[in-house]
Amino acid sequence: MDLSNYDIILASGSPRRSELLKSLDIPFRIQLKPVKEDYPDSLNPEEVPEFLARKKASVYELDQDHQVLITADTLVLFKNEVLTKPINEEDARNILKKLSGNTHTVITGVCIRYSDQTSSFSDHSQVRFTSLLDSEIEYYIQNYKPFDKAGAYGIQEWIGSVAIESIQGSYNNVMGLPTSKLYKTLKSLLCL
Amino acid sequence: MDLSNYDIILASGSPRRSELLKSLDIPFRIQLKPVKEDYPDSLNPEEVPEFLARKKASVYELDQDHQVLITADTLVLFKNEVLTKPINEEDARNILKKLSGNTHTVITGVCIRYSDQTSSFSDHSQVRFTSLLDSEIEYYIQNYKPFDKAGAYGIQEWIGSVAIESIQGSYNNVMGLPTSKLYKTLKSLLCL
Repeated sequence: MDLSNYDIILASGSPRRSELLKSLDIPFRIQLKPVKEDYPDSLNPEEVPEFLARKKASVYELDQDHQVLITADTLVLFKNEVLTKPINEEDARNILKKLSGNTHTVITGVCIRYSDQTSSFSDHSQVRFTSLLDSEIEYYIQNYKPFDKAGAYGIQEWIGSVAIESIQGSYNNVMGLPTSKLYKTLKSLLCL
Repeated sequence: MDLSNYDIILASGSPRRSELLKSLDIPFRIQLKPVKEDYPDSLNPEEVPEFLARKKASVYELDQDHQVLITADTLVLFKNEVLTKPINEEDARNILKKLSGNTHTVITGVCIRYSDQTSSFSDHSQVRFTSLLDSEIEYYIQNYKPFDKAGAYGIQEWIGSVAIESIQGSYNNVMGLPTSKLYKTLKSLLCL
């Protein structure tokens, strides 16, 4: 897929998302604009990531013919409870204790805008954690400081290697960008 | 898990396996010894990786109290056919055409030796590929030259991001080392 004639904008500050988009061999640049990440209470938690991805995309004005905008939002769901980024160590500890020995769901919503078209979707992955000792949770929090991560963990870090025995779905989706579905959607949106 | 008092030897030349073992924050060194990677015809393909991991481990002599040896072997199975490392571009093309649009199984066998104990296991992951165009297969072969990889692909490369919409099992196992099971086995073998 040759995208060298397009100006692709990734509207995300996440280094994981940059890395994943790079893995598709797609040239892009990062442009950030502030947007309030709130959503109506009436929304089902599963609909939130796609809603927020569309909201993030709505604040941009595309002013060139070949501009493509990509936004995303990732959410961790455990028994219908949204697990956000931990606000401190105690919060991270509580979140990881919930995940330990259980299966949770990671949903990433993606929105792509091109010309006058807007396409969005979301992808679900199930992640099974083995049981972690308190000392292991402590080791991870002290050494990896997962305060910028929804669900208080990064699958590509120590805790992912130690605790994740199995996933069902896309690994990249858990990292923050369902690359295969994104690639397919880009191809169809740009008629490539 | 503090392993600083152990001399851990990874008997594998695979940079992916080194990276994965490193992700467990385990100190180790690499030591390679030649071993003929053959196995009895009577063996069920699913038993081959663990058999070869044990065989690779058998050629080492552990001469210190705190030495731990780790070996592994990864195999790609498609409809009970073992897909090996491709011998040339044509072979890689044929293998990737088989995987395209289908689900295959990746099995990694692991053997750990410590003192007079030998422990081995294998882990299975199901990998679902989307349908690839011939031009996409060609792009991958020309740019990534997957001749050192069983099944002619690396999940962490472009083709993994593009074609793998979903897996069932451990992602690290597909890369070459089921880290979570390895960590658990090490803990139990070393009574940590």
